[in-house]
Amino acid sequence: MLERVIQDIQPLCEASINASRTRVDKLIKPMGSLGKLESYFVQLCGIQRTLKPSLDKKAIIVMASDHGVFEEGVAVSPRPVTMVQAINMTRGLTGVCALAKSAGAEVVVVDVGIDADMSGTDVLNRKVMEKGTNNLAKGPAMSRAEAIQVLETGIEIAHQKIGEGSKILGIGEMGIANTTPTSAIVSVITETDPSIVTGPGANLPASRVEHKANIIRQSIQINKPNKMDGVDVLSKVGGLDIGGMAGVILGCASRQVPVIVDGFIALAASLIAVTIEPNVKDYLIPSHQSMEPGAKIAASHLGLTPPLAMDMRLGEGTGAALMFGILEASVHMDSQMVTFDEGGFRLPDA
Amino acid sequence: MLERVIQDIQPLCEASINASRTRVDKLIKPMGSLGKLESYFVQLCGIQRTLKPSLDKKAIIVMASDHGVFEEGVAVSPRPVTMVQAINMTRGLTGVCALAKSAGAEVVVVDVGIDADMSGTDVLNRKVMEKGTNNLAKGPAMSRAEAIQVLETGIEIAHQKIGEGSKILGIGEMGIANTTPTSAIVSVITETDPSIVTGPGANLPASRVEHKANIIRQSIQINKPNKMDGVDVLSKVGGLDIGGMAGVILGCASRQVPVIVDGFIALAASLIAVTIEPNVKDYLIPSHQSMEPGAKIAASHLGLTPPLAMDMRLGEGTGAALMFGILEASVHMDSQMVTFDEGGFRLPDA
Repeated sequence: MLERVIQDIQPLCEASINASRTRVDKLIKPMGSLGKLESYFVQLCGIQRTLKPSLDKKAIIVMASDHGVFEEGVAVSPRPVTMVQAINMTRGLTGVCALAKSAGAEVVVVDVGIDADMSGTDVLNRKVMEKGTNNLAKGPAMSRAEAIQVLETGIEIAHQKIGEGSKILGIGEMGIANTTPTSAIVSVITETDPSIVTGPGANLPASRVEHKANIIRQSIQINKPNKMDGVDVLSKVGGLDIGGMAGVILGCASRQVPVIVDGFIALAASLIAVTIEPNVKDYLIPSHQSMEPGAKIAASHLGLTPPLAMDMRLGEGTGAALMFGILEASVHMDSQMVTFDEGGFRLPDA
Repeated sequence: MLERVIQDIQPLCEASINASRTRVDKLIKPMGSLGKLESYFVQLCGIQRTLKPSLDKKAIIVMASDHGVFEEGVAVSPRPVTMVQAINMTRGLTGVCALAKSAGAEVVVVDVGIDADMSGTDVLNRKVMEKGTNNLAKGPAMSRAEAIQVLETGIEIAHQKIGEGSKILGIGEMGIANTTPTSAIVSVITETDPSIVTGPGANLPASRVEHKANIIRQSIQINKPNKMDGVDVLSKVGGLDIGGMAGVILGCASRQVPVIVDGFIALAASLIAVTIEPNVKDYLIPSHQSMEPGAKIAASHLGLTPPLAMDMRLGEGTGAALMFGILEASVHMDSQMVTFDEGGFRLPDA
């Protein structure tokens, strides 16, 4: 199934890109003066293969899972926070829920490997590993088969939401300790030393960041992931939440749907997805500038320049949620503004 | 009237700031992890003197006027563009209209000195000078009395919109050649050489930017504005649009209403307003990072760090319009999220 989806991922529609660029250049404003609003609009046209892109129905897919590397002392939050916050998300109480509500977007919470029995909750049960990943500092986080399974889970969820009418998706996550596999993925794929990529995540004291970087270095040395093989990197030093997000990205790209990348963890998922299929890159829309040092490295590797400098570091998809409004403004730019010709007037000659 | 309004401008409410900060710190997320969303929320509480700030009714005030310095060849757009675009704004056709519509905000267009007969249009007639300012390269742009009059015009418009129910205002402008007085104001008040402050504005070729900087330097040498006196700086090297915007800022601050600062020109208006009354500073909310070199200098002088890196340089209030959605998300953060206590649960101990 993964192979079939990868084959469905096409380059953007050149005709839509060119025609929308031409129209945007003729709107009554100095050429290029609406900056990224213009480029997002053109990208949306290229992705959706239309000159009238729609953002009518929106959802954020939050992938939640636990991480075996937690036992190395790389996070300060207690491990059950993953479970508690996943449930809180289904009740509309967490950060991403608040921002999604503000944007008129649905939040879907998926358990791809939370170390807890989630039956009786509204979290979608798609567990790939019952207790979360294995400790990547001692061996592979998951098997290759499990990596493929979690990617396919993300694809399936994306296709389901798109089938229900979503015209754009955002990705988010919940998984205590997940900045460790994230940093490992960024380190491997961008070939950057773990000491440069690694940051404090969710309030890890500065004194313990070096330990975290050492654990990441150890995990790479032990597992020897092949940076050219996204599935290999995901299985050896990744996480189920990250794999699920990468799957959502592949699922969106295969159905010509734009996907908003959140912060650091979503960028690592993007690196996995783009390594699996380079055409995916054009379907990604960045959102906020994460505070983690590795986020800048990952974004730059992907050619993304996130427009929101909000000093946020919550994850969950909060950055993606803020981005919906910006993209809606870009669609309004097209639908409300007129070209000089359409307006039946032209600027007086100088 | 100006003096009375200045006396009405008070520091923010400390009690609201402290109480809202305490609540935000207890919401179910790592402390501080929603970054600027948290600080904007606390600021809104301090400004509106409440723990439940409202953004229910929103408007952008666009001040439009012409500039005598146009005759020095500092702009490429023809001078009548000011008049044409002011009319287009009342028809909902320009950039700020599109983005304001997306945000659910009204746009009010005010003629404080457009060099054209605007009767028969929907542009509000508040002309302070019939043909716009005088050429500041040869003498004062306006008299001190005219500067006070345009400030009072801005105050009056702000008070009117607030009286009609607006809980937050944004400021924008339309005025061909207005980056020249803007650069002059920033140069004077921040004590920065014109060559550093001056940029291309609306697509001025790089080869003519040095000429523009020289005109600005000349205007400062001839007029000798007193940087401690905001009215003096405005009258000698300013513009009517800029003065109108500064008036809106003063009007908002005097009624405990937050005001969103747009790009470069709005920052110069903010410098004028803050020079007149320093307490104004806390009522300002930045929006996008203008591409003009002087914008960064002005923002830094005001202690503002605009969160939107959109590569926009249209003006009109387009950056302010994009900011409404971000602020609404900050209000949703408070109204949707719960504290650990309110949720009746707490995180498991480590």
